[in-house]
Amino acid sequence: MQYDPENIFAKILKGEIPSFKVYEDEDTYCFMDIMPRSDGHCLVIPKTPCRNILDASPAQLAACMATVNKVANACMSAFGANGITLQQFSEAAGGQEVFHLHFHIHPRHEGVSMRPAGKMGDMDAIKAHADAIAAAIK
Amino acid sequence: MQYDPENIFAKILKGEIPSFKVYEDEDTYCFMDIMPRSDGHCLVIPKTPCRNILDASPAQLAACMATVNKVANACMSAFGANGITLQQFSEAAGGQEVFHLHFHIHPRHEGVSMRPAGKMGDMDAIKAHADAIAAAIK
Repeated sequence: MQYDPENIFAKILKGEIPSFKVYEDEDTYCFMDIMPRSDGHCLVIPKTPCRNILDASPAQLAACMATVNKVANACMSAFGANGITLQQFSEAAGGQEVFHLHFHIHPRHEGVSMRPAGKMGDMDAIKAHADAIAAAIK
Repeated sequence: MQYDPENIFAKILKGEIPSFKVYEDEDTYCFMDIMPRSDGHCLVIPKTPCRNILDASPAQLAACMATVNKVANACMSAFGANGITLQQFSEAAGGQEVFHLHFHIHPRHEGVSMRPAGKMGDMDAIKAHADAIAAAIK
């Protein structure tokens, strides 16, 4: 399967579509999911092109996971979370909807289920969550 | 949270509990989940101790993801899968049950849902799936 350079995350990376930024470094970018299945639901992507886990290079995966670790710990303190659920969907049958590698980070609280997918969130709340995570990143 | 060296994956690594091996290298081990939520459901773990995504080192995460990439591609060809769903649960509230870092790899087929968690699988089928993935690893 080929990488489509016009996918929406590629456009976010190019600044053609806005996003609520949480964190970035040389190799990765983290921003909020605008259809959050949990409060603080955010995405980590590599800045270089690949579709998903199947065609990602070891370097792209390593860079993403270092950022996942950093952001996940920030979520724990920013929201007083009790745990993290990490998901990555590869190809449509695996659950993927945007074909640029991304890892979903869900801050979780004891006894609180994740919400169903596909419902647009409140933009003010999402922005506040982005800022809270960013402030907690060490 | 502290790492418990007596968790069952630590015992699997020490050979004190049997497992259906799929793959191993210097840093990681991959084996079958015996409560498979999909045919071919397997787990990738680091050989060194850490609880989950929150305390894992960049090196542990990088090694695990290189193996995830390898095994996921093998699952695609071994089962003619259409996609992969990757999950990682950190702490009980995140869905974690065994407190040694592990990534769940689920081979997925178009239109086939994952099964509910917690039901023991057929050991002969699981062994056959392990062998099929192992044979497909490049």
